[in-house]
Amino acid sequence: MTAPRRIAFFAFPGTEELDFVGPWEVLSAWAHNWRDDAIECIAVAETTEPIRCAKGLRILPDCTWDDAPEFDILVVPGGRGTRPLLERAPTLARLRKAADANKLIVSVCTGALLLAKAGLLDGKPATTHYESLTLLGELGRDVDVRPEARFVDTGNIITAAGVSAGIDAALHLIVRLHSVGRAREVRRYIQYDPSPPV
Amino acid sequence: MTAPRRIAFFAFPGTEELDFVGPWEVLSAWAHNWRDDAIECIAVAETTEPIRCAKGLRILPDCTWDDAPEFDILVVPGGRGTRPLLERAPTLARLRKAADANKLIVSVCTGALLLAKAGLLDGKPATTHYESLTLLGELGRDVDVRPEARFVDTGNIITAAGVSAGIDAALHLIVRLHSVGRAREVRRYIQYDPSPPV
Repeated sequence: MTAPRRIAFFAFPGTEELDFVGPWEVLSAWAHNWRDDAIECIAVAETTEPIRCAKGLRILPDCTWDDAPEFDILVVPGGRGTRPLLERAPTLARLRKAADANKLIVSVCTGALLLAKAGLLDGKPATTHYESLTLLGELGRDVDVRPEARFVDTGNIITAAGVSAGIDAALHLIVRLHSVGRAREVRRYIQYDPSPPV
Repeated sequence: MTAPRRIAFFAFPGTEELDFVGPWEVLSAWAHNWRDDAIECIAVAETTEPIRCAKGLRILPDCTWDDAPEFDILVVPGGRGTRPLLERAPTLARLRKAADANKLIVSVCTGALLLAKAGLLDGKPATTHYESLTLLGELGRDVDVRPEARFVDTGNIITAAGVSAGIDAALHLIVRLHSVGRAREVRRYIQYDPSPPV
Protein backbone atom coordinates (compact mmCIF):
# COMPACT_ATOMS: atom_id res chain seq x y z
CA MET A 1 0.00 0.00 0.00
CA THR A 2 1.52 3.31 -1.10
CA ALA A 3 0.99 6.56 0.76
CA PRO A 4 -2.22 8.26 -0.34
CA ARG A 5 -2.11 11.07 -2.82
CA ARG A 6 -3.64 13.97 -1.00
CA ILE A 7 -5.67 16.67 -2.73
CA ALA A 8 -5.99 19.96 -0.82
CA PHE A 9 -8.95 22.21 -1.62
CA PHE A 10 -8.36 25.87 -0.81
CA ALA A 11 -11.41 27.30 0.97
CA PHE A 12 -11.67 31.07 1.50
CA PRO A 13 -14.45 33.54 2.27
CA GLY A 14 -16.36 34.15 -0.95
CA THR A 15 -15.44 30.83 -2.60
CA GLU A 16 -18.00 30.09 -5.31
CA GLU A 17 -19.87 27.03 -4.06
CA LEU A 18 -19.84 24.89 -7.21
CA ASP A 19 -16.23 25.84 -8.04
CA PHE A 20 -15.31 24.04 -4.83
CA VAL A 21 -17.88 21.26 -4.65
CA GLY A 22 -17.83 20.21 -8.32
CA PRO A 23 -14.25 18.91 -8.18
CA TRP A 24 -14.74 17.88 -4.53
CA GLU A 25 -17.63 15.58 -5.51
CA VAL A 26 -15.70 14.04 -8.41
CA LEU A 27 -12.46 13.52 -6.51
CA SER A 28 -13.88 12.57 -3.13
CA ALA A 29 -16.34 10.14 -4.76
CA TRP A 30 -13.28 8.58 -6.38
CA ALA A 31 -11.53 8.50 -2.98
CA HIS A 32 -14.48 6.98 -1.11
CA ASN A 33 -15.65 4.46 -3.68
CA TRP A 34 -12.23 3.18 -4.79
CA ARG A 35 -10.28 3.04 -1.55
CA ASP A 36 -7.38 1.10 -3.06
CA ASP A 37 -6.59 4.05 -5.29
CA ALA A 38 -5.44 5.81 -2.10
CA ILE A 39 -6.79 9.29 -2.77
CA GLU A 40 -7.63 11.70 0.01
CA CYS A 41 -9.38 15.09 -0.17
CA ILE A 42 -9.09 17.80 2.48
CA ALA A 43 -10.47 21.32 2.78
CA VAL A 44 -7.75 23.77 3.86
CA ALA A 45 -8.12 27.41 4.91
CA GLU A 46 -6.44 30.22 6.79
CA THR A 47 -8.36 29.34 9.96
CA THR A 48 -10.77 26.58 10.95
CA GLU A 49 -13.60 29.07 11.39
CA PRO A 50 -16.71 28.54 9.23
CA ILE A 51 -16.34 30.00 5.76
CA ARG A 52 -19.18 31.90 4.12
CA CYS A 53 -19.16 31.06 0.42
CA ALA A 54 -20.01 33.52 -2.35
CA LYS A 55 -23.67 32.51 -2.50
CA GLY A 56 -24.20 32.14 1.24
CA LEU A 57 -23.48 28.50 2.09
CA ARG A 58 -21.19 28.01 5.08
CA ILE A 59 -18.58 25.26 5.01
CA LEU A 60 -16.04 24.13 7.60
CA PRO A 61 -12.37 23.61 6.66
CA ASP A 62 -10.68 20.42 7.85
CA CYS A 63 -7.48 22.21 8.83
CA THR A 64 -5.44 25.38 8.47
CA TRP A 65 -2.48 25.81 6.15
CA ASP A 66 -0.19 25.57 9.18
CA ASP A 67 -1.74 22.29 10.33
CA ALA A 68 -2.26 20.79 6.88
CA PRO A 69 -0.55 17.48 6.14
CA GLU A 70 1.64 17.24 3.05
CA PHE A 71 -0.38 17.32 -0.13
CA ASP A 72 0.31 16.54 -3.78
CA ILE A 73 -2.39 18.46 -5.59
CA LEU A 74 -3.92 21.86 -4.82
CA VAL A 75 -7.37 22.86 -6.04
CA VAL A 76 -7.92 26.64 -6.17
CA PRO A 77 -11.58 27.53 -6.69
CA GLY A 78 -12.81 30.93 -7.78
CA GLY A 79 -15.56 33.26 -6.65
CA ARG A 80 -15.67 36.93 -5.71
CA GLY A 81 -13.51 36.07 -2.68
CA THR A 82 -10.51 35.81 -5.01
CA ARG A 83 -10.45 39.61 -5.52
CA PRO A 84 -9.22 40.58 -2.02
CA LEU A 85 -6.78 37.62 -2.15
CA LEU A 86 -5.12 39.17 -5.22
CA GLU A 87 -3.69 41.75 -2.79
CA ARG A 88 -2.74 39.25 -0.11
CA ALA A 89 0.98 38.49 -0.30
CA PRO A 90 0.91 35.40 1.97
CA THR A 91 -1.71 33.74 -0.24
CA LEU A 92 0.30 34.42 -3.41
CA ALA A 93 3.47 33.20 -1.69
CA ARG A 94 1.69 29.99 -0.73
CA LEU A 95 0.73 29.35 -4.33
CA ARG A 96 4.31 30.01 -5.53
CA LYS A 97 5.65 27.68 -2.85
CA ALA A 98 3.27 24.92 -3.98
CA ALA A 99 4.38 25.40 -7.59
CA ASP A 100 8.07 25.45 -6.62
CA ALA A 101 7.53 22.16 -4.80
CA ASN A 102 6.18 20.68 -8.04
CA LYS A 103 2.66 20.23 -6.76
CA LEU A 104 -0.01 19.96 -9.40
CA ILE A 105 -2.27 23.03 -9.19
CA VAL A 106 -5.82 22.99 -10.52
CA SER A 107 -7.77 26.25 -10.66
CA VAL A 108 -11.48 26.58 -11.34
CA CYS A 109 -13.11 29.75 -12.65
CA THR A 110 -11.51 32.92 -11.24
CA GLY A 111 -9.13 30.84 -9.14
CA ALA A 112 -6.89 31.30 -12.20
CA LEU A 113 -6.62 35.02 -11.38
CA LEU A 114 -4.68 34.12 -8.24
CA LEU A 115 -2.33 31.89 -10.21
CA ALA A 116 -1.78 34.67 -12.76
CA LYS A 117 -1.07 37.25 -10.04
CA ALA A 118 1.39 34.81 -8.44
CA GLY A 119 3.21 34.67 -11.78
CA LEU A 120 2.46 31.00 -12.32
CA LEU A 121 0.79 31.51 -15.70
CA ASP A 122 3.46 33.73 -17.30
CA GLY A 123 3.97 32.61 -20.88
CA LYS A 124 1.49 29.76 -20.49
CA PRO A 125 -1.92 28.95 -21.92
CA ALA A 126 -4.78 29.27 -19.42
CA THR A 127 -8.48 29.94 -19.05
CA THR A 128 -10.96 31.30 -16.50
CA HIS A 129 -14.60 32.42 -16.16
CA TYR A 130 -15.70 34.16 -19.35
CA GLU A 131 -16.17 37.50 -17.57
CA SER A 132 -12.55 37.51 -16.33
CA LEU A 133 -10.64 36.59 -19.47
CA THR A 134 -9.28 40.12 -20.00
CA LEU A 135 -8.28 40.49 -16.36
CA LEU A 136 -6.49 37.12 -16.53
CA GLY A 137 -4.30 38.44 -19.33
CA GLU A 138 -3.60 41.67 -17.44
CA LEU A 139 -2.56 39.98 -14.20
CA GLY A 140 0.13 37.79 -15.74
CA ARG A 141 2.87 38.30 -18.33
CA ASP A 142 2.25 36.92 -21.80
CA VAL A 143 -0.56 34.65 -20.61
CA ASP A 144 -1.96 32.82 -23.63
CA VAL A 145 -5.64 33.28 -22.74
CA ARG A 146 -7.90 30.59 -24.19
CA PRO A 147 -11.52 31.84 -24.25
CA GLU A 148 -12.93 28.70 -25.83
CA ALA A 149 -11.24 26.06 -23.68
CA ARG A 150 -13.22 24.08 -21.10
CA PHE A 151 -9.92 23.54 -19.30
CA VAL A 152 -6.23 23.89 -20.17
CA ASP A 153 -3.61 21.41 -18.95
CA THR A 154 -0.02 22.69 -19.07
CA GLY A 155 1.46 19.78 -17.14
CA ASN A 156 1.94 21.32 -13.70
CA ILE A 157 -1.07 23.58 -13.88
CA ILE A 158 -4.63 22.95 -15.01
CA THR A 159 -6.98 25.93 -15.34
CA ALA A 160 -10.72 25.38 -15.84
CA ALA A 161 -13.31 27.78 -17.23
CA GLY A 162 -16.21 29.10 -15.13
CA VAL A 163 -17.91 27.36 -12.20
CA SER A 164 -19.26 24.08 -13.62
CA ALA A 165 -16.10 23.51 -15.71
CA GLY A 166 -14.37 22.25 -12.57
CA ILE A 167 -16.34 19.01 -12.91
CA ASP A 168 -14.87 18.36 -16.34
CA ALA A 169 -11.35 19.31 -15.22
CA ALA A 170 -11.61 16.96 -12.22
CA LEU A 171 -12.60 14.06 -14.46
CA HIS A 172 -9.58 14.88 -16.63
CA LEU A 173 -7.44 14.81 -13.49
CA ILE A 174 -8.58 11.25 -12.76
CA VAL A 175 -7.51 10.28 -16.27
CA ARG A 176 -4.07 11.75 -15.61
CA LEU A 177 -3.65 10.25 -12.16
CA HIS A 178 -5.24 6.88 -12.89
CA SER A 179 -7.02 5.96 -16.13
CA VAL A 180 -9.78 6.72 -18.58
CA GLY A 181 -11.61 3.70 -17.18
CA ARG A 182 -11.66 5.03 -13.62
CA ALA A 183 -12.74 8.48 -14.77
CA ARG A 184 -15.63 6.87 -16.63
CA GLU A 185 -16.64 4.94 -13.52
CA VAL A 186 -16.69 8.11 -11.43
CA ARG A 187 -18.60 9.91 -14.15
CA ARG A 188 -21.14 7.11 -14.10
CA TYR A 189 -21.42 7.25 -10.31
CA ILE A 190 -22.29 10.96 -10.34
CA GLN A 191 -24.56 10.21 -13.30
CA TYR A 192 -22.91 12.99 -15.26
CA ASP A 193 -24.91 12.81 -18.45
CA PRO A 194 -25.70 16.49 -18.54
CA SER A 195 -28.88 17.52 -20.27
CA PRO A 196 -29.38 21.27 -19.78
CA PRO A 197 -33.11 21.97 -20.28
CA VAL A 198 -32.41 25.47 -21.64
CA MET B 1 -41.91 44.39 -3.96
CA THR B 2 -43.51 41.02 -3.29
CA ALA B 3 -42.38 38.72 -0.49
CA PRO B 4 -39.48 36.56 -1.58
CA ARG B 5 -40.04 33.02 -2.64
CA ARG B 6 -37.97 31.01 -0.23
CA ILE B 7 -36.28 27.75 -1.19
CA ALA B 8 -35.34 25.48 1.74
CA PHE B 9 -32.55 22.96 1.21
CA PHE B 10 -32.74 19.95 3.53
CA ALA B 11 -29.29 19.18 4.95
CA PHE B 12 -28.71 15.93 6.86
CA PRO B 13 -25.70 13.83 7.84
CA GLY B 14 -24.59 11.90 4.77
CA THR B 15 -26.05 14.33 2.22
CA GLU B 16 -24.25 13.82 -1.09
CA GLU B 17 -22.29 17.02 -1.64
CA LEU B 18 -23.18 17.74 -5.27
CA ASP B 19 -26.83 16.71 -4.76
CA PHE B 20 -27.04 19.68 -2.44
CA VAL B 21 -24.65 22.18 -3.99
CA GLY B 22 -25.63 21.66 -7.65
CA PRO B 23 -29.14 23.10 -7.18
CA TRP B 24 -27.83 25.46 -4.47
CA GLU B 25 -25.40 27.02 -6.94
CA VAL B 26 -28.03 27.39 -9.65
CA LEU B 27 -30.76 28.80 -7.41
CA SER B 28 -28.62 30.94 -5.13
CA ALA B 29 -26.74 32.38 -8.13
CA TRP B 30 -30.18 33.33 -9.43
CA ALA B 31 -31.06 34.84 -6.05
CA HIS B 32 -27.82 36.83 -5.69
CA ASN B 33 -27.44 38.05 -9.26
CA TRP B 34 -31.07 38.97 -9.94
CA ARG B 35 -32.21 40.48 -6.64
CA ASP B 36 -35.47 41.81 -8.06
CA ASP B 37 -36.64 38.25 -8.69
CA ALA B 38 -36.92 37.96 -4.88
CA ILE B 39 -35.57 34.45 -4.42
CA GLU B 40 -33.97 33.29 -1.20
CA CYS B 41 -32.15 30.03 -0.43
CA ILE B 42 -31.64 28.61 3.06
CA ALA B 43 -30.06 25.43 4.40
CA VAL B 44 -32.32 23.76 6.98
CA ALA B 45 -31.51 20.81 9.26
CA GLU B 46 -32.56 19.08 12.47
CA THR B 47 -29.99 21.04 14.45
CA THR B 48 -27.55 23.85 13.66
CA GLU B 49 -24.56 21.58 14.36
CA PRO B 50 -22.11 21.06 11.49
CA ILE B 51 -23.22 18.37 9.08
CA ARG B 52 -20.75 15.85 7.71
CA CYS B 53 -21.71 15.13 4.10
CA ALA B 54 -21.42 11.74 2.41
CA LYS B 55 -17.96 12.42 1.02
CA GLY B 56 -16.59 14.21 4.04
CA LEU B 57 -17.26 17.92 3.53
CA ARG B 58 -18.79 19.68 6.53
CA ILE B 59 -21.46 22.32 6.00
CA LEU B 60 -23.37 24.51 8.45
CA PRO B 61 -27.16 24.80 8.29
CA ASP B 62 -28.70 28.26 8.48
CA CYS B 63 -31.48 27.17 10.82
CA THR B 64 -33.38 24.23 12.26
CA TRP B 65 -36.77 23.06 11.08
CA ASP B 66 -38.29 24.58 14.22
CA ASP B 67 -36.68 27.97 13.57
CA ALA B 68 -37.07 27.96 9.79
CA PRO B 69 -39.08 30.78 8.23
CA GLU B 70 -41.95 29.88 5.93
CA PHE B 71 -40.74 28.45 2.67
CA ASP B 72 -42.32 27.76 -0.72
CA ILE B 73 -40.05 25.14 -2.21
CA LEU B 74 -38.22 22.26 -0.55
CA VAL B 75 -35.11 20.67 -2.06
CA VAL B 76 -34.41 17.14 -0.80
CA PRO B 77 -30.94 15.92 -1.80
CA GLY B 78 -29.84 12.30 -1.70
CA GLY B 79 -26.78 10.47 -0.43
CA ARG B 80 -26.26 7.49 1.85
CA GLY B 81 -27.67 9.56 4.70
CA THR B 82 -31.15 9.04 3.25
CA ARG B 83 -31.16 5.37 4.32
CA PRO B 84 -31.46 5.95 8.10
CA LEU B 85 -33.98 8.72 7.40
CA LEU B 86 -36.26 6.16 5.69
CA GLU B 87 -36.95 4.85 9.19
CA ARG B 88 -37.34 8.25 10.82
CA ALA B 89 -41.02 9.03 11.23
CA PRO B 90 -40.57 12.76 12.01
CA THR B 91 -38.65 13.28 8.76
CA LEU B 92 -41.30 11.51 6.70
CA ALA B 93 -44.04 13.45 8.51
CA ARG B 94 -42.24 16.69 7.66
CA LEU B 95 -42.21 15.81 3.97
CA ARG B 96 -45.93 14.90 4.05
CA LYS B 97 -46.71 18.16 5.81
CA ALA B 98 -44.83 20.13 3.14
CA ALA B 99 -46.74 18.31 0.40
CA ASP B 100 -50.08 18.85 2.17
CA ALA B 101 -49.29 22.56 2.35
CA ASN B 102 -48.83 22.55 -1.44
CA LYS B 103 -45.14 23.30 -1.33
CA LEU B 104 -43.20 22.37 -4.43
CA ILE B 105 -40.80 19.53 -3.56
CA VAL B 106 -37.67 18.85 -5.61
CA SER B 107 -35.65 15.71 -4.90
CA VAL B 108 -32.20 14.96 -6.26
CA CYS B 109 -30.77 11.45 -6.57
CA THR B 110 -31.82 9.19 -3.66
CA GLY B 111 -33.74 12.03 -2.04
CA ALA B 112 -36.61 10.51 -4.04
CA LEU B 113 -36.50 7.44 -1.78
CA LEU B 114 -37.66 9.61 1.11
CA LEU B 115 -40.54 10.99 -0.96
CA ALA B 116 -41.54 7.45 -1.97
CA LYS B 117 -41.43 6.21 1.62
CA ALA B 118 -43.55 9.19 2.66
CA GLY B 119 -46.16 8.09 0.11
CA LEU B 120 -45.72 11.20 -2.03
CA LEU B 121 -44.89 9.32 -5.21
CA ASP B 122 -47.75 6.77 -5.11
CA GLY B 123 -49.16 6.38 -8.60
CA LYS B 124 -46.82 9.03 -9.98
CA PRO B 125 -43.87 9.05 -12.40
CA ALA B 126 -40.49 9.59 -10.74
CA THR B 127 -36.79 8.95 -11.03
CA THR B 128 -33.69 8.60 -8.83
CA HIS B 129 -30.03 7.52 -8.96
CA TYR B 130 -29.65 4.60 -11.36
CA GLU B 131 -28.59 2.23 -8.58
CA SER B 132 -31.78 2.89 -6.59
CA LEU B 133 -34.46 2.59 -9.29
CA THR B 134 -35.71 -0.79 -8.02
CA LEU B 135 -35.79 0.37 -4.42
CA LEU B 136 -37.73 3.47 -5.47
CA GLY B 137 -40.47 1.23 -6.90
CA GLU B 138 -40.54 -0.91 -3.78
CA LEU B 139 -40.84 1.99 -1.33
CA GLY B 140 -43.92 3.50 -2.92
CA ARG B 141 -47.16 2.15 -4.35
CA ASP B 142 -47.47 1.99 -8.13
CA VAL B 143 -44.60 4.42 -8.64
CA ASP B 144 -44.05 4.81 -12.39
CA VAL B 145 -40.25 4.56 -12.29
CA ARG B 146 -38.54 6.36 -15.18
CA PRO B 147 -34.99 5.00 -15.59
CA GLU B 148 -34.14 7.18 -18.59
CA ALA B 149 -35.41 10.53 -17.34
CA ARG B 150 -32.98 13.27 -16.32
CA PHE B 151 -35.78 14.64 -14.16
CA VAL B 152 -39.54 14.17 -13.88
CA ASP B 153 -41.93 17.04 -13.17
CA THR B 154 -45.38 16.01 -11.89
CA GLY B 155 -46.49 19.51 -11.00
CA ASN B 156 -46.07 19.50 -7.21
CA ILE B 157 -43.05 17.21 -7.20
CA ILE B 158 -39.91 17.16 -9.31
CA THR B 159 -37.55 14.19 -8.98
CA ALA B 160 -34.09 14.28 -10.54
CA ALA B 161 -31.78 11.40 -11.45
CA GLY B 162 -28.40 10.88 -9.74
CA VAL B 163 -26.12 13.55 -8.25
CA SER B 164 -25.33 15.94 -11.13
CA ALA B 165 -28.92 15.80 -12.45
CA GLY B 166 -29.92 18.28 -9.77
CA ILE B 167 -28.25 21.02 -11.81
CA ASP B 168 -30.54 20.32 -14.77
CA ALA B 169 -33.63 20.07 -12.55
CA ALA B 170 -32.77 23.41 -10.89
CA LEU B 171 -32.51 25.14 -14.26
CA HIS B 172 -35.90 23.66 -15.13
CA LEU B 173 -37.23 25.09 -11.87
CA ILE B 174 -36.13 28.58 -12.91
CA VAL B 175 -38.06 28.13 -16.16
CA ARG B 176 -41.15 27.21 -14.15
CA LEU B 177 -40.81 29.98 -11.59
CA HIS B 178 -39.62 32.71 -13.96
CA SER B 179 -38.71 32.16 -17.62
CA VAL B 180 -36.58 30.35 -20.15
CA GLY B 181 -34.62 33.58 -20.55
CA ARG B 182 -33.66 33.79 -16.88
CA ALA B 183 -32.72 30.09 -16.78
CA ARG B 184 -30.44 30.67 -19.76
CA GLU B 185 -28.82 33.64 -18.03
CA VAL B 186 -28.10 31.57 -14.92
CA ARG B 187 -26.81 28.72 -17.07
CA ARG B 188 -24.48 31.20 -18.75
CA TYR B 189 -23.29 32.57 -15.40
CA ILE B 190 -22.27 29.11 -14.17
CA GLN B 191 -20.81 28.51 -17.64
CA TYR B 192 -22.74 25.26 -17.86
CA ASP B 193 -21.58 24.05 -21.26
CA PRO B 194 -20.67 20.60 -20.05
CA SER B 195 -17.95 18.82 -21.94
CA PRO B 196 -17.15 15.56 -20.14
CA PRO B 197 -13.62 14.54 -21.19
CA VAL B 198 -14.44 10.82 -20.82
